[in-house]
Amino acid sequence: MKQSHLFTKTQKENPSDEISKNAQLLIRAGFINKEMAGVYDLLPLGLIVFNKIKEVIRKEMNAIGGQELILSTLQDPVIWKKTNRWNDDVVDIWFKTSLSAGGEIGLGWTHEEAITRIMTKFVHSYKDLPAYPYQFQNKFRNEIRAKSGIMRTREFVMKDMYSFSKDEKSHTEFYEKCAGAYMRIFNTLGIGDKTYKTFASGGAFTKYSHEFQTISDSGEDIIFVNEEKNIAVNEEVMEDSVLKELGVSKEEMLEKKSIEVGNIFSLGTKFSDELNLKYKDEEGNPKSVVMGSYGIGPGRLLGTIAEILSDDKGLVWPSIIAPFSLHLISIDKNAEADMLYEKLISMGIEVLYDDRDVSAGNKFADSDLIGIPIRIVLSDRSIKDGGLEVKNRTEKDSKIISEEELLKNISV
Amino acid sequence: MKQSHLFTKTQKENPSDEISKNAQLLIRAGFINKEMAGVYDLLPLGLIVFNKIKEVIRKEMNAIGGQELILSTLQDPVIWKKTNRWNDDVVDIWFKTSLSAGGEIGLGWTHEEAITRIMTKFVHSYKDLPAYPYQFQNKFRNEIRAKSGIMRTREFVMKDMYSFSKDEKSHTEFYEKCAGAYMRIFNTLGIGDKTYKTFASGGAFTKYSHEFQTISDSGEDIIFVNEEKNIAVNEEVMEDSVLKELGVSKEEMLEKKSIEVGNIFSLGTKFSDELNLKYKDEEGNPKSVVMGSYGIGPGRLLGTIAEILSDDKGLVWPSIIAPFSLHLISIDKNAEADMLYEKLISMGIEVLYDDRDVSAGNKFADSDLIGIPIRIVLSDRSIKDGGLEVKNRTEKDSKIISEEELLKNISV
Repeated sequence: MKQSHLFTKTQKENPSDEISKNAQLLIRAGFINKEMAGVYDLLPLGLIVFNKIKEVIRKEMNAIGGQELILSTLQDPVIWKKTNRWNDDVVDIWFKTSLSAGGEIGLGWTHEEAITRIMTKFVHSYKDLPAYPYQFQNKFRNEIRAKSGIMRTREFVMKDMYSFSKDEKSHTEFYEKCAGAYMRIFNTLGIGDKTYKTFASGGAFTKYSHEFQTISDSGEDIIFVNEEKNIAVNEEVMEDSVLKELGVSKEEMLEKKSIEVGNIFSLGTKFSDELNLKYKDEEGNPKSVVMGSYGIGPGRLLGTIAEILSDDKGLVWPSIIAPFSLHLISIDKNAEADMLYEKLISMGIEVLYDDRDVSAGNKFADSDLIGIPIRIVLSDRSIKDGGLEVKNRTEKDSKIISEEELLKNISV
Repeated sequence: MKQSHLFTKTQKENPSDEISKNAQLLIRAGFINKEMAGVYDLLPLGLIVFNKIKEVIRKEMNAIGGQELILSTLQDPVIWKKTNRWNDDVVDIWFKTSLSAGGEIGLGWTHEEAITRIMTKFVHSYKDLPAYPYQFQNKFRNEIRAKSGIMRTREFVMKDMYSFSKDEKSHTEFYEKCAGAYMRIFNTLGIGDKTYKTFASGGAFTKYSHEFQTISDSGEDIIFVNEEKNIAVNEEVMEDSVLKELGVSKEEMLEKKSIEVGNIFSLGTKFSDELNLKYKDEEGNPKSVVMGSYGIGPGRLLGTIAEILSDDKGLVWPSIIAPFSLHLISIDKNAEADMLYEKLISMGIEVLYDDRDVSAGNKFADSDLIGIPIRIVLSDRSIKDGGLEVKNRTEKDSKIISEEELLKNISV
């Protein structure tokens, strides 16, 4: 894409109403826009990265048997009353609204109730299990205080998967499989070395749940980590009995701030019992379906990666989710750069081409801010030196290569 | 995909609470699920078709210079008050809700206000124009009566594009370009021959707007069509003065029921004036930006295609948006069919493989209901006859071809 055509522009100054680094950088670089507190838009560059993050997650979900769908935002109170999660005293983050035709409805903040009711239409026999539906869908949560930029917002996309298994044993097998898929996702996205599968409260459902926590000073959570044994515990379950069970002592655990980038829950038969999701086993006996839920927020991941992998010059995207592979910058050499751009495009390379009529200094600063992995400069000097000046976003020094070398290396 | 793994199942009977053919067929075939009146979920098969429709639209929008983004559902009253569209007396389809932190907010039913405010951050000079942002985003409309299945719902995805041009001339050029892109979309989707660019009311903004109306007895709209002259007029502007302007007489126009599958609006400077979106022209004079908006609902298209192209046996998908290219059906020949399935998958062919332990009659009925373009049956009889029995969904007769022929024809 030609940068002169991109309707967003970078801005030099941090927005006055943002204190979090992720939102500051993403707004300055033109990836997101703030509508109001806790509500952001995805602008073109942000949407590209967001969709690439979704694709990384989607591949892993499909690989473990996931089937994608999209459930509605508008929620029918009938099913939520059955599980006692409609009342504002029980769930304090509902957005509710009214139908002109009469009756209250809610905006989905999670989808256990809806997906369980759907499954009652399709699951009747043990032959219909297991099933692993998932979606990328908007969630709405009426947070009293929106904070941490795009990490905790009132409207956000969640990848939520739900598992339906015939017994605890097959549930546990899938639960572990999903935990593995989650770690592969965080590794692929470049934050695996900072992310821990963390013991957390199981709530009303089960003894423990697991969170995936990424170490960061900007995190809202506190976890205790034993790096050597690769064990992490959320402070909410940091008790002697838990530590004993895990075979670690308090002294071995280091306190860290962290960002919750995913969570997996065993739900037992709570929802299936309350919404009457039963199946007939091999002997024809009615049984309750065993459920789990598995969440990752691609928007929060976008924020986490912006926060953690950036430097003082701007964003630093891992190649797999970068908005473009190459940032081609022309310094007064648009005729030559136009030709190179066309060549790269015809090879299917994703290029942002800075063909704007602004100073070299501005172009370099914007390039660092936007954070595309590889920068290629075409200028009088680079031509005199033998071709193109190539620099990785994470490296300080550039080198000169010929156009042939560039095209050869890229096509390989 | 193996049909035994697909968690949705077809149903023989029409749902008792649906009178529209599109919803009946899509529910029976497992493409959608009804949450409540006017609110539907997209199940896996439905989501595949929906995403393919989006991709057809996306390609055309990108080809005319569109830049994709996603705006928020939650809407800030501040901007809507400036354009006088917040008040329920003016706009009667708002869903509104309240923030815990205090203050009323709305659910977006369109996005002119939001996108115009964003553009004030990026558009300052004539050099920043034109710009054509667009999105696929949920719209919420508090319809008193939801009807026509998935054609008129309270929650739906809209592709809405907004154009920002420096003057009427360049606006009109883009408007015509977009009208052309729309007709290409409807042609690609197989409803072009039934779809008319139709003169409609321009509302407060301009003399006319244009709707794209697809002839169907299930439509909610009435249009008058002159097929020979390729002129169509919505009944709301079916006046002598309009007909005279178009050079047709009332007698030449046939009354038809139709479905509005798209619309394009010239907005003039209404929103840019009210939200202060100005630019400096070549001489440095401040000017108002000229706007347009362009909508297509991929969900309504899904419903329209289900309604129009189906027959009494079920859905009939055009290849380009079919959930799968081939429906492979095994009749007691799973070992052979498994091998063929693996071959097709390895060739990158999208196959639904009916490996279920149900009767041939059930498999054929389901195949007709689901509506995949090509059905391939592998059975004792087909093997005796020389290979595979191949039938197009729209044809009555099948023919026998060898596996080699099939693989050759597909790869070509």
